[in-house]
Amino acid sequence: MSTNNTSNNAFNRTILEELLKKRFFYAPAFQAYGGVAGLYDYGPPGCALQANILDLWRRHFVLEEDMLEVDCTIITPSDVLKTSGHVEKFADWMVKDLKTGEIFRADHLVEAVLEARLEGDRQARASESDVIAAVTKDADGKSSEQDKKRKKKGKVQAVKLGDSVKAEYEEILAKIDNYTGPELGELMRKHEIKNPETGSDLTEPVEFNLMFESNIGPTGALKGYLRPETAQGQFLNFKKLLEFNNDKMPFASASIGRSFRNEISPRSGLLRVREFVMAEIEHFVDPLKKDHPRFNEVKDTKLRLLSQSIQAEGKTQPIELSIGDAIDQKIVDNKTLGYFLARIHLFLIKLGINPLRLRFRQHMPNEMAHYACDCWDAEIQSSYGWIECVGCADRSAYDLTVHSIRTKEKLVVRETLPTPQVYEKTILDINQKIFGPKLRQNAKIVEEYLTSLDEQQLESLKEDLEKGNGKTTVPGTNGEGYEVSTEFLTIKRQTFAEHVREYTPNVIEPSFGIGRILYSLIEHVYWMREGSEQRAVLSFPARVSPFKCLLVPLSHHPTFTDLIQDMTTRLRKLSIPIKIDDSSNSIGRRYSRNDELGTPFAITIDFQSVKEGTVTLRERDTTKQIREKAKAIFRFLLSSYLTAAFYNIDTILVILKDLVEENITWETVISRYPEFTQQELD
Amino acid sequence: MSTNNTSNNAFNRTILEELLKKRFFYAPAFQAYGGVAGLYDYGPPGCALQANILDLWRRHFVLEEDMLEVDCTIITPSDVLKTSGHVEKFADWMVKDLKTGEIFRADHLVEAVLEARLEGDRQARASESDVIAAVTKDADGKSSEQDKKRKKKGKVQAVKLGDSVKAEYEEILAKIDNYTGPELGELMRKHEIKNPETGSDLTEPVEFNLMFESNIGPTGALKGYLRPETAQGQFLNFKKLLEFNNDKMPFASASIGRSFRNEISPRSGLLRVREFVMAEIEHFVDPLKKDHPRFNEVKDTKLRLLSQSIQAEGKTQPIELSIGDAIDQKIVDNKTLGYFLARIHLFLIKLGINPLRLRFRQHMPNEMAHYACDCWDAEIQSSYGWIECVGCADRSAYDLTVHSIRTKEKLVVRETLPTPQVYEKTILDINQKIFGPKLRQNAKIVEEYLTSLDEQQLESLKEDLEKGNGKTTVPGTNGEGYEVSTEFLTIKRQTFAEHVREYTPNVIEPSFGIGRILYSLIEHVYWMREGSEQRAVLSFPARVSPFKCLLVPLSHHPTFTDLIQDMTTRLRKLSIPIKIDDSSNSIGRRYSRNDELGTPFAITIDFQSVKEGTVTLRERDTTKQIREKAKAIFRFLLSSYLTAAFYNIDTILVILKDLVEENITWETVISRYPEFTQQELD
Repeated sequence: MSTNNTSNNAFNRTILEELLKKRFFYAPAFQAYGGVAGLYDYGPPGCALQANILDLWRRHFVLEEDMLEVDCTIITPSDVLKTSGHVEKFADWMVKDLKTGEIFRADHLVEAVLEARLEGDRQARASESDVIAAVTKDADGKSSEQDKKRKKKGKVQAVKLGDSVKAEYEEILAKIDNYTGPELGELMRKHEIKNPETGSDLTEPVEFNLMFESNIGPTGALKGYLRPETAQGQFLNFKKLLEFNNDKMPFASASIGRSFRNEISPRSGLLRVREFVMAEIEHFVDPLKKDHPRFNEVKDTKLRLLSQSIQAEGKTQPIELSIGDAIDQKIVDNKTLGYFLARIHLFLIKLGINPLRLRFRQHMPNEMAHYACDCWDAEIQSSYGWIECVGCADRSAYDLTVHSIRTKEKLVVRETLPTPQVYEKTILDINQKIFGPKLRQNAKIVEEYLTSLDEQQLESLKEDLEKGNGKTTVPGTNGEGYEVSTEFLTIKRQTFAEHVREYTPNVIEPSFGIGRILYSLIEHVYWMREGSEQRAVLSFPARVSPFKCLLVPLSHHPTFTDLIQDMTTRLRKLSIPIKIDDSSNSIGRRYSRNDELGTPFAITIDFQSVKEGTVTLRERDTTKQIREKAKAIFRFLLSSYLTAAFYNIDTILVILKDLVEENITWETVISRYPEFTQQELD
Repeated sequence: MSTNNTSNNAFNRTILEELLKKRFFYAPAFQAYGGVAGLYDYGPPGCALQANILDLWRRHFVLEEDMLEVDCTIITPSDVLKTSGHVEKFADWMVKDLKTGEIFRADHLVEAVLEARLEGDRQARASESDVIAAVTKDADGKSSEQDKKRKKKGKVQAVKLGDSVKAEYEEILAKIDNYTGPELGELMRKHEIKNPETGSDLTEPVEFNLMFESNIGPTGALKGYLRPETAQGQFLNFKKLLEFNNDKMPFASASIGRSFRNEISPRSGLLRVREFVMAEIEHFVDPLKKDHPRFNEVKDTKLRLLSQSIQAEGKTQPIELSIGDAIDQKIVDNKTLGYFLARIHLFLIKLGINPLRLRFRQHMPNEMAHYACDCWDAEIQSSYGWIECVGCADRSAYDLTVHSIRTKEKLVVRETLPTPQVYEKTILDINQKIFGPKLRQNAKIVEEYLTSLDEQQLESLKEDLEKGNGKTTVPGTNGEGYEVSTEFLTIKRQTFAEHVREYTPNVIEPSFGIGRILYSLIEHVYWMREGSEQRAVLSFPARVSPFKCLLVPLSHHPTFTDLIQDMTTRLRKLSIPIKIDDSSNSIGRRYSRNDELGTPFAITIDFQSVKEGTVTLRERDTTKQIREKAKAIFRFLLSSYLTAAFYNIDTILVILKDLVEENITWETVISRYPEFTQQELD
């Protein structure tokens, strides 16, 4: 797959966005009704692209590791999300314009205003005529597109700032993700940050919970939320899943589905929306056994890691090393985490993500989600900068523990120990036959007291009994004193053999934002051919492209109709999604319109096809073609299912199926079959 | 596929439900938190089954007809659903117990209470000892399970009813779906229907809107709902989809996704839930051209049709005839509708639905949804009775029209006419150069009046002008009279040639409730083997079964480990989802546990496998096996991709892939390869 797009320089996002809307990859939802911020519909190409990404995800993760895939509900009773911590903590800070009522997300606003002031400072420092056209790039790779956005929002005024102010702004921006609400309010006061459009004052930052609320049922008594992640459904089914897995550990559950975040200010197209598709894995692992049985298969995978320690030094360049080395050097905490980072990397590359524009950044301690003790984000670089597309969190035993406490259901793994664990313990033994009659109506409260004692307290009581010649006084749970004696009370050391170890598993959670991956992928595979006609190409890998093959008759002649029909039927039988273009556009234009959709192959039918039963097969990126004579015999391809010495239309179809399933590469095909070089008619 | 389940008699739903929960096909969501009525999670087998049904649906509909699949948002602004009529009409009637506050759905309550009284009447009429055990079946096939349910709800008392009362109850029950709220209230008063549990009075029926509400964004100003169907998103994208289809008609959009209904009383397991997966098609068709280009391919498909006229006669037995005949006899309105009924039928049969337990029932006029002018439901019979699983509605131009009016966006097809449509029209021509100066400041209001006239009114005005010698008086839009004359006013007949025809398409909408289909399918394929051990089998077609192959080593011997690993890797490469069972259970038990999951094939590895490279392949329903010697050569199967004269483990895998994709049947395999009859070890 050829892609020119290793740098941002020639890239024009406005043109790409126009293309994506025009070809209906996606579009704002409810446009006729004015649209709703953060809601997008996927049209046929976008929908197919998403489905192919998810299909590949299932094969790469669920199928490959025998994961247990579940499909849980979106509607979640509020009690569940109270317990998980989301009701309290899943919020952003917002400020409101006191006059207009307009609402801003506080951190985004501070960011926009300070960036505008820094831009103004740059303008003031540079010469007037040069500045506006300059392509400004800062250290973290944000492009000039973002500068243009800032200018709009921040009303850039060319004002020079003092050096210390400039440094202070830059420091604030570097840490912008880490401030609490009150801290943001303080910054806004200190630096006089107001509504950039109107100049009005803004309220103190107030928390806004990011979950959509709804009532369940007719009474109004049962409050619920739309889930902000698929994870909780998976955790709550832990026991059933463990049982389904024959009590074997480790195992992973997986779930693909929509989640919801009632964002204060959706922006950046598909990157910050209110409703989105997630694919999440919950890998349940013994906290004492964080090796991974298949780690060796991935240990040489090279990753670009931006660890906590590098960031703490103020640096932004990741180091590149194999995951095996990263584990040895203790950059990544354990092999299970390392295994998943490598598998995430391999998946994204398989999709077509440019490895040079992919890195893994570890969360700093104060930016972790409330449930995570470690987290590495797969960040993909697009024209919007480095954006988190996959989060790989260590949720330790947080979720299972909070749900277990709340529901009083043990969420544990019971493991038969290979050799029993032997230990001693001080225990209490009450001879009820004597104890009951002796203490009569007070028996209960005395027993309650006695059974509440821990080992140390029992040892202490034993001493008291010895000192008192077998008798002593203890309080009942009512506080009164009661006499107890060794007649009915024995306190002794006893040896136990524990055959079963019970533990709460830890969870490693790779969590994929499919819309973000999809958008970033498009940016990575998008390029323009040489020449003035603005011919765009989306060079998706064949397995991912929305349509697999274009079917075109060379001209609009009735003789082709039957052959087109026949080809269509055969391609459908092979389950190959096609697009037919029998419009009156030139053949070159029809190829080009499908290059825009990223369709990797095109079959062209002409008069020779009708006569001889041969067709041409064109490849998208090279635009090269092969043509083959009709024959009726197959021969096996030993490395994939088929090869052919002599071949006909069926052969082309079979080659196509192999190409589409990536059992064979175009290079192999082109090396086997002579190239067909009829001129493309433009 | 062998299924014994053509009648209900031996079927026990409680046992099946226990099996489905035990094997985690699905389970109530949030069980540890007490559950929420109408919310279910799908575990690994149910999730896979659902995914396979949807995959088959895409191939059968979307791929086969080049439908345009979209993925739209669940969150919908309230304005859209006001326009569509759902805010006003998408409701059920509820009544409330005045003392306890308990809420019932009014029609279900009336149904339950009257059925209980009829059951009590039956008990009173029959002899005491016989009645309780009797299997009661009424004309529409409801089983005794439902009677047991009724008994619980309705507190059956053995009281004999008068004949006329009994007849009245039966008539009410036959029409129970058709009453309005006030009518239900009247019935409840007349027949003294109260809370069956407490005997308390109930409120008048009140409408409860069935959509989940939520606020979008932080201001609280933008109200939204969770969509009750995927249809609106498809309609609102009509223009973009028409453009994507190169303005060609007819075409269909399709959408798979979750929809939501805040049911008053969820019940019947997966059949009435609050959150469910739908797959919907919107087929846009010219109202004047309701033929279908592919109708002939399906015209001989036999369907069982319960039309309006049959039901109006009080009958409940459908007629069986080909869809071609049904069109000819005008039982089904048009070929597009007929084509889809046939395609729905073929899809359901392909899934494994028993055709004897499938029928198409037409809605009576007063039960149509507010947007439909015709509707045929595919009803599947299960232990819950005949349940609508697919609705095939004719929505005419309703939705596009209401959205067009509200948004002022034309949602039409513009069709270039092959020959221009020539017509005459009476038109008005105002010579502004004279009109303006003549009428001066009154020109505007007079012109507004004149341009508002229709053809008839213009003809009338023309007559007035002729009578008045070229002059007459007309009112301005202010009501005052103004003189006009033929100096500046010409009214004439003119001929037009219309080259473009503009029309609003009609919509035929097949709408699939995937959860209902999934549950009904399970009931249809479920059966018990002969014998006392209660061995259940789910005889899913191979393409639909959650797992395709069980992999078992005959015993738990270390020599098998490498071979198991090798087979696993190969099966994964073929994308065949498998389950490995290397537990210490007997081989028979392991086969049986996977028959419960519906796994169609099992590969068993034994010592001969290690020595010779052969394995056995067992089929689920017949339990028969084949075994083959190891050889290294393939040969083509000419009808599907491969055959083999001599074959080895790879051969078995390739046969398996063909079986799983249903390119070949087990019958063909067994006819080609000698049967292997080693005794199954139990």
